Amino acid sequence: MTQPAEVAAPGRAPVRADESADESAVDIEAARRARVALGWLVEPGSLPLWLRIAEHGPVRVLDGLLATGRENPLRQAAGARLGAADPRAAAEAALARTRRLGARVVIPEDDEWPRQLDQLIRICTAGGKDPIDRDAAPPLCLWARGSWRLDEALDRSVAVVGARAATGYGAHVARQLGYGLAERDWTVVSGGAFGVDACAHRGALAAGGCTIVVLACGVDRAYPAGHAGLFERVAEDGLLVSEWPPGAEPFRHRFLIRNRVIAAATKGTVVVEAGARSGALQTLRRAGELGRCRMAVPGPVTSAMSVGCHEQLRDPEVRLVTGVPHILEEVGRLSTDLAPVVRGPVHPRDRLAPAAQRLLEALLIRKPLSSEALAARAGVPAGEAMWILPSLVQQGFARRREHGFILAPDAGGAAA
Amino acid sequence: MTQPAEVAAPGRAPVRADESADESAVDIEAARRARVALGWLVEPGSLPLWLRIAEHGPVRVLDGLLATGRENPLRQAAGARLGAADPRAAAEAALARTRRLGARVVIPEDDEWPRQLDQLIRICTAGGKDPIDRDAAPPLCLWARGSWRLDEALDRSVAVVGARAATGYGAHVARQLGYGLAERDWTVVSGGAFGVDACAHRGALAAGGCTIVVLACGVDRAYPAGHAGLFERVAEDGLLVSEWPPGAEPFRHRFLIRNRVIAAATKGTVVVEAGARSGALQTLRRAGELGRCRMAVPGPVTSAMSVGCHEQLRDPEVRLVTGVPHILEEVGRLSTDLAPVVRGPVHPRDRLAPAAQRLLEALLIRKPLSSEALAARAGVPAGEAMWILPSLVQQGFARRREHGFILAPDAGGAAA
Repeated sequence: MTQPAEVAAPGRAPVRADESADESAVDIEAARRARVALGWLVEPGSLPLWLRIAEHGPVRVLDGLLATGRENPLRQAAGARLGAADPRAAAEAALARTRRLGARVVIPEDDEWPRQLDQLIRICTAGGKDPIDRDAAPPLCLWARGSWRLDEALDRSVAVVGARAATGYGAHVARQLGYGLAERDWTVVSGGAFGVDACAHRGALAAGGCTIVVLACGVDRAYPAGHAGLFERVAEDGLLVSEWPPGAEPFRHRFLIRNRVIAAATKGTVVVEAGARSGALQTLRRAGELGRCRMAVPGPVTSAMSVGCHEQLRDPEVRLVTGVPHILEEVGRLSTDLAPVVRGPVHPRDRLAPAAQRLLEALLIRKPLSSEALAARAGVPAGEAMWILPSLVQQGFARRREHGFILAPDAGGAAA
Repeated sequence: MTQPAEVAAPGRAPVRADESADESAVDIEAARRARVALGWLVEPGSLPLWLRIAEHGPVRVLDGLLATGRENPLRQAAGARLGAADPRAAAEAALARTRRLGARVVIPEDDEWPRQLDQLIRICTAGGKDPIDRDAAPPLCLWARGSWRLDEALDRSVAVVGARAATGYGAHVARQLGYGLAERDWTVVSGGAFGVDACAHRGALAAGGCTIVVLACGVDRAYPAGHAGLFERVAEDGLLVSEWPPGAEPFRHRFLIRNRVIAAATKGTVVVEAGARSGALQTLRRAGELGRCRMAVPGPVTSAMSVGCHEQLRDPEVRLVTGVPHILEEVGRLSTDLAPVVRGPVHPRDRLAPAAQRLLEALLIRKPLSSEALAARAGVPAGEAMWILPSLVQQGFARRREHGFILAPDAGGAAA
């Protein structure tokens, strides 16, 4: 792009009203390029990468990863892509393609970043045994197509998810909920799939409200193809959002990784219809892990598409909702709890994984111990301690010192 | 009836193997006649009458009520019927009519009395504000038609209740549940009404199992008339049960009084379909008050006949059930708790009505205080204290002494 200000005053440096603001803008753009490059190297959700970025910033982490000769634990995560092409060039290309689409890349350094997504760090350290829980770190960045600010659009939002093979009943209920939520100025977030997802989006659009499709592929791809028209309407009146760059394909595993964003971005998740093993139930589980409202719509006990909902509703913590008033009752109650992500002891010790708890107990108040020493004291593999300790620091349980880690002064309070 | 033994040995008294057993049989028949007479005088569910019988036995209570000249607080409850006819003659007539029907009157003095019904005393003293709660005392006696022993038929039993105006869906589910429960040797108890009740009974009969209709009229009346055939089949293969004598009419208020028996007799109550103000919800509430399982079947949120079920299912203590396995999971879990009615502190103080709690606090450990003195100490009307104190004795919180009441030694434990 040309820079008209400089052209108008040749030979003179352009006047800058606020050098420091501009410098921070330059920093943010560098961070954006670095995050896109890192996202190109490592599939979204990587906990080690997120923790490193939280500590050193994206630019230094990318530099470190690309510096030859030095040992770097992230090398393995970056895997095959390291050396296959220049990540910085790939990032530039992705950003150029993004601009051509009229889309943008939103990063945590931006004001519009939805802070609630950073609470995903809770899932990674809450001790889930599922390997997918290791891939549940907050997104590095989000592609967005649409004119809404991400944070504002998601401020009052509910996820409405469910079966692709929805029945007429499920489709009707999803449309009603989408319409009713939008009518009351709540944003409807879903995954853009056939069935419940699409009906919820369409209901919201019909009410003239905001709806967000969180995709498992690039924001320029229509998957399923039959939803090309729907996605165009959403880009116009709502938002298309993705963790993957334009052109990225909807690989199967990406749907499960994507689901955590739907759960974390919203105040609560409603499952409208779900078979016994529906992916929508994973989104609901994520919502529960994050302290968001879990809700399900009942249906006929004779319908296979309600089996998943009913099984969930047998958990006393999952609330039965029959319409928008019930949903608003739930998310309204919790909304004060959903303050932006907290630095410090965000959750009590007992939500930590067993290994993290043992490491926490191994920490001393005054004397810093190395990660190896702590691993030995706690009986935790050294490799595991290496990524758990920074996460304990991140959560305010531990502090980093020159020669290792100490117990944070207020970590005891967090255990209460 | 002739007595062949005496005829065979004229001039000699018949040999009696066990005089005391015979005498107790005579006592039981006297109690039966007295209970039927008292039931003729006072509509079922009267708490003052039940408490007096618990203390003095039915024969003395009837004598006292019929003795002229003495003031008797039960006179008011007996009301219009006192003096209208001879209650003892009415009882004899009712018993004769019962025999002609091939039915019988079962009383608490009989071995086959279902002891769990006596737990209804908890409802009367648990402080419900509804006037109907004053009419929730255990039955005085039960008419039964059918060959099953009442206690055995009810030992493993579940109430399946719901809307008269059931949809095709509700009718289908009720039949399925009735069939499945009977198939697993559980007795299906319901009210014999159109809709859900009838479908549950029919499902149980189809499986060759036992089903019990608890009527709000005499066991010789078919109400609704369209169920005459169904009731004949139930009398053949299951049981028709009622608190009212043969010929009694199904007055409207009797259905609500009847519901407490359905809730108390069974291990749990399942509501299959219910409008927002269905009587089936009252049965479910009773079940909850009695510590029985409360269960509801969900349905389409678009169906008015599921509104009551869904509203109940938003209470975390009401369990969603989609079929017989879920029901058995619930009632199986609780079945060990449902021991026969307990003398002594059956439930903690905080389930007592406020007036009962104040009276309990007014009691002393050693010095007996009269009911008037306790009423004054507790700030409770004397008339109220007069019927609450015997109930506290009944529940093991208080003891009766010659000059009044004292605190039971273990009542403190009950408050823990």
